Amino acid sequence: MVTKTVDLRSDTVTKPTEAMRAAMANAEVDDDVLTYDPTAFRLETEMAKVMGKEAALFVPSGTMGNLISVLVHCDIRGSEVILGDNSHIHIYENGGISTIGGVHPKTVKNNRDGTMDIDLIEAAIRDPKGELVYPTTRLICLENSQANCGGRCLSVEYTDRVGEIAKQHGLKLHIDGARIFNAAVALGVPVHRLVQAADSVSVCLSKGLGAPVGSVIVGSRDFVNKARRLRKTLGGGMRQVGILCAAALVALQENVGKLEGDHKKAKMLAEGLNQIEGLKVDLDIVETNIVYFDVIEGLKMNAESLCKNMEEHGVLVMPESSSRIRVVLHHQISVSDVQYTLSCFQQALTGVPEENGN
Amino acid sequence: MVTKTVDLRSDTVTKPTEAMRAAMANAEVDDDVLTYDPTAFRLETEMAKVMGKEAALFVPSGTMGNLISVLVHCDIRGSEVILGDNSHIHIYENGGISTIGGVHPKTVKNNRDGTMDIDLIEAAIRDPKGELVYPTTRLICLENSQANCGGRCLSVEYTDRVGEIAKQHGLKLHIDGARIFNAAVALGVPVHRLVQAADSVSVCLSKGLGAPVGSVIVGSRDFVNKARRLRKTLGGGMRQVGILCAAALVALQENVGKLEGDHKKAKMLAEGLNQIEGLKVDLDIVETNIVYFDVIEGLKMNAESLCKNMEEHGVLVMPESSSRIRVVLHHQISVSDVQYTLSCFQQALTGVPEENGN
Amino acid sequence: MVTKTVDLRSDTVTKPTEAMRAAMANAEVDDDVLTYDPTAFRLETEMAKVMGKEAALFVPSGTMGNLISVLVHCDIRGSEVILGDNSHIHIYENGGISTIGGVHPKTVKNNRDGTMDIDLIEAAIRDPKGELVYPTTRLICLENSQANCGGRCLSVEYTDRVGEIAKQHGLKLHIDGARIFNAAVALGVPVHRLVQAADSVSVCLSKGLGAPVGSVIVGSRDFVNKARRLRKTLGGGMRQVGILCAAALVALQENVGKLEGDHKKAKMLAEGLNQIEGLKVDLDIVETNIVYFDVIEGLKMNAESLCKNMEEHGVLVMPESSSRIRVVLHHQISVSDVQYTLSCFQQALTGVPEENGN
Amino acid sequence: MVTKTVDLRSDTVTKPTEAMRAAMANAEVDDDVLTYDPTAFRLETEMAKVMGKEAALFVPSGTMGNLISVLVHCDIRGSEVILGDNSHIHIYENGGISTIGGVHPKTVKNNRDGTMDIDLIEAAIRDPKGELVYPTTRLICLENSQANCGGRCLSVEYTDRVGEIAKQHGLKLHIDGARIFNAAVALGVPVHRLVQAADSVSVCLSKGLGAPVGSVIVGSRDFVNKARRLRKTLGGGMRQVGILCAAALVALQENVGKLEGDHKKAKMLAEGLNQIEGLKVDLDIVETNIVYFDVIEGLKMNAESLCKNMEEHGVLVMPESSSRIRVVLHHQISVSDVQYTLSCFQQALTGVPEENGN
Repeated sequence: MVTKTVDLRSDTVTKPTEAMRAAMANAEVDDDVLTYDPTAFRLETEMAKVMGKEAALFVPSGTMGNLISVLVHCDIRGSEVILGDNSHIHIYENGGISTIGGVHPKTVKNNRDGTMDIDLIEAAIRDPKGELVYPTTRLICLENSQANCGGRCLSVEYTDRVGEIAKQHGLKLHIDGARIFNAAVALGVPVHRLVQAADSVSVCLSKGLGAPVGSVIVGSRDFVNKARRLRKTLGGGMRQVGILCAAALVALQENVGKLEGDHKKAKMLAEGLNQIEGLKVDLDIVETNIVYFDVIEGLKMNAESLCKNMEEHGVLVMPESSSRIRVVLHHQISVSDVQYTLSCFQQALTGVPEENGN
Repeated sequence: MVTKTVDLRSDTVTKPTEAMRAAMANAEVDDDVLTYDPTAFRLETEMAKVMGKEAALFVPSGTMGNLISVLVHCDIRGSEVILGDNSHIHIYENGGISTIGGVHPKTVKNNRDGTMDIDLIEAAIRDPKGELVYPTTRLICLENSQANCGGRCLSVEYTDRVGEIAKQHGLKLHIDGARIFNAAVALGVPVHRLVQAADSVSVCLSKGLGAPVGSVIVGSRDFVNKARRLRKTLGGGMRQVGILCAAALVALQENVGKLEGDHKKAKMLAEGLNQIEGLKVDLDIVETNIVYFDVIEGLKMNAESLCKNMEEHGVLVMPESSSRIRVVLHHQISVSDVQYTLSCFQQALTGVPEENGN
Repeated sequence: MVTKTVDLRSDTVTKPTEAMRAAMANAEVDDDVLTYDPTAFRLETEMAKVMGKEAALFVPSGTMGNLISVLVHCDIRGSEVILGDNSHIHIYENGGISTIGGVHPKTVKNNRDGTMDIDLIEAAIRDPKGELVYPTTRLICLENSQANCGGRCLSVEYTDRVGEIAKQHGLKLHIDGARIFNAAVALGVPVHRLVQAADSVSVCLSKGLGAPVGSVIVGSRDFVNKARRLRKTLGGGMRQVGILCAAALVALQENVGKLEGDHKKAKMLAEGLNQIEGLKVDLDIVETNIVYFDVIEGLKMNAESLCKNMEEHGVLVMPESSSRIRVVLHHQISVSDVQYTLSCFQQALTGVPEENGN
Repeated sequence: MVTKTVDLRSDTVTKPTEAMRAAMANAEVDDDVLTYDPTAFRLETEMAKVMGKEAALFVPSGTMGNLISVLVHCDIRGSEVILGDNSHIHIYENGGISTIGGVHPKTVKNNRDGTMDIDLIEAAIRDPKGELVYPTTRLICLENSQANCGGRCLSVEYTDRVGEIAKQHGLKLHIDGARIFNAAVALGVPVHRLVQAADSVSVCLSKGLGAPVGSVIVGSRDFVNKARRLRKTLGGGMRQVGILCAAALVALQENVGKLEGDHKKAKMLAEGLNQIEGLKVDLDIVETNIVYFDVIEGLKMNAESLCKNMEEHGVLVMPESSSRIRVVLHHQISVSDVQYTLSCFQQALTGVPEENGN
């Protein structure tokens, strides 16, 4: 009999807190398509300030935030964007920048730490006065933290360096900051400093920050004006959206402070998993709230059957492949949940409950 | 000193009721991108049933509902859609079906009653075996009620006839049903009967129905599966969206019944305006909750200055042009608000308060 | 037994003359994608001069000429073009400006004389500071002569007036000048004067001018630079294209002077057809080399069977509909061909050879 | 004083032979947009037969051939194509498949021999029943010979293997066969066998085959029918195109047999260059008519100044970078031209004429 659920599939599964529900129930709202919603205005003002940019815009999802940002910077037909071959935009967003936006992606290899080599970025930039056969490079995209590289963080120095290159070549820099607060907390720098070099950032509110819905994109006032029009085109303009923004404001106020704890729990889980026979975690790369680990071949279970087994004990995890599992920590996972999870893995693989499990 | 606000700019300005706020505060939610949100599931199931279609999908806006629908039906490059030259999709949605979707629009003149002549629709259909120089007609779009024609309703007979033509030519029929419940109520037919001939319908929840955010598109299961993928591409997939769906369920249960009253108030307002010297309303076309009226030339105010004047008295209305004003009724406008509005117009134009004004 | 062929299907059917064949056989050529072809350079220089524009570019077809022109002027996502509802671009070019270019068309009714009402053009322009829901108007397209309106010509005054409106609103003006030389000759004005108000013009060399292949687009140097890149993208860059340009230079030198004769033959044919019982020609609209005529209902043949019948006598004509036929004159149709054609129509419809037929 | 020109910039610089010029001067032509041109028909029939496919279509360029092929196979919005990161389509065609066609490219690393690892291709294919966030893989593209890898050839076995994978996953296989005849000759296999696994092939006539203009795409009848429509959309439909096709027929008949000689001259040039101090050629990879070689650092000239120097002696070559030069052999380069070229390089770098130079 399953008596508890520990949902580690993603930090998108977080549910609104009581404070968020109260905020939504009491939110002051108006028609935001007509730009009259006061709560949307408050959230956007607050987020612009926190991120150190002129203006901000609430959007229904991180995917739309990235799509709009890329399309605004690449608003002229024939544009090319440089981005990581392992980036969320390239792999997990339906290829929308091309299929919807007609932007040509030029990928550069993501290193294990989430960076792209600076010289490879420079080599990927097309000479604007160059050959008639080249699209025009207009944008570089970074992702911080880099989800598919295990939640690795890009440093201020690295980000600044890419920003300089962008500037030298007349390009824009966009940061997919779905988990930018995780990165800032892990690096111990103010988030506005971390994104200082960027012309735009998309920030997700419904991942680690725990809001039910939404992302915010920030940038110059001109960027946001163009983004607002494109949001309408895509159908992302919503009416009394202050409801969602009220919850997002709570998320911003209450949950940034919890991210450090999420990272600690991630390390605790990673270390525990690494001690279980049959599992292997590269502890060095656990910097934020994401843990990837491998299930050694030849065990009685592979990643998929192990995930199924865990589900029977109320622990929800998703296999990445037949030998690899990803878990994501968030503020609704307690230390005791981590211990329970470790105990379940231990038992599943060895048949013996973990000694120190509670 | 303004002591009250009567917001007649649109039925999109409606604010969530207490019941909606309570429903949002208590909504059971989960990650809807992973298709686990139970409240989204309930709303979609309910809406599919009401509309008599196999399946449904919640989307952030009517614009996205129409965009997805057109793009799903026109998923092959080189598609053309036939639609009214006065339709919302053609005029007020940023040309997104072309600029985002690459679909070529072929417009047919909208008559004053919102219809397009049947023979003009037929003439606009390209011969699929025809010339190499033609795009391929794949879709006909209707709009019911037709906002820009004054909220006029398309009858069951007309809709069925267009549906037959579509079928004969292997085309799909989409109905922009932003206000389809208004049309069904005004015509006195069940809404599922009114859209029976359609392959897809987009229905707005945040107009007359008063939900804070969102539309639903309905159609076959295959249509909705494709729509779900495209919604993700556009960035319309939202996480704990059950919050919004909870309010939408209340809207569906409580507010359909109020539309008839909105239509009565629209008629009352139209008749009152028509009696004010300087204003002219074509009473015959007031079928639902929209009233267009003209400000006669040569008065001391034109439409724009008149709207400004009204604003000072707390009555919010928007000019369509220098001589034309649109007002939209909804459940948060009372009979007394209508009387107050008439009184303000009377005073603005004649300097004398309306006799029977409150 | 058919002993002769009179091909009146279009002026695109003209075959290269001996002079053109000799020019092609002896053309000096080089790689034009590398911009080294001297004959392409000569043609483009000559055409720019004739049209009174800074620069010119050879393209494989009129369709590509129009497509490139519209896309260069509308190079920013979210653009709208105003064009005639009966224009070649809108009807006969596969909707490519949308399906390939993502440009949203806003059609204005073409009058019988090929014009669009000036006030309708103005009304179609979207306010650039306007609503968030509007695409951005960036271009007006005219067509001169207007093929689908019977080869009608737009005057210098009309063209200038549209150019002024474009300028006032910061828009560009493109002229689809597939048959601009026909218009200039019919109006008795220099062609450069006729297109003076235009930012770009596409001119067809393989219609009345009789070159085997190609069109040229003209405009500012900046326009042509952008057009050259887009031509490469579309695959319209060709290597030793001087072969085709050599023939086009002959066409330009030798055949402009023949257009007046084509117009005279068109009038002769129109008048003759109008005298045949069962056929009806609106003589007033025959201004250039195109003649539309109607086959009266109730005859033993309709337009389609009549065309089939004519084919048996070597006269190639194409039905537009069951009651309408289009014929197009060109320099390879002689006066005697016109007389023979009239004789064949006469015989087909009345059973009696035309008296004066040869 | 320069007395001769040896143009090694590309095999696109070949000029039409006397036989081609005669064929063009005497070509039987008609309107090919109406599908009546007999010479186009002959060329397409011949090319389909040679390539072992059902049907063929003449297009103005290899870029259009590839663009049409990719877009026909990826005709549904949301498509992804797998192709080499060093392929011509990805690097040198303006990103047109995305910027014009909305197709999302997923690149796989090209090995030095032009192949992509089979397991990397398989890993790049998206699960069609898979996640909502993936575009749909519809096509794999190969390039044979692979220009940017030095003209390396893909074997029959490799091509067949990729074809099997495509078939297993319901994908199409397109071969960019700009120089497919070079590959077939170098491999000693019939060209139809080499492309047997492909659903479509684009073949260039104006590279090594020496025709002035054009490519042909081959595939199933259904593929070609769709391609014909798309060619019209792009503006690649040309009128009396038989002129160009006549030259192409000569190229096909006379010049395939000369490719082996081009390859021998390439080897001769490569070996000669490798013996010149300061130049380095990887002789193993010279399989066809392309030779890449490196200019060692620290010489008095780098690649760019060396190319300039050569130009003064009438030898036209293009630098790829500051240290790398590409030369391309073709039928208008004689053995004596190769010797002269070697002599010039020798002299430029060492100040001493090559001993055996003529």
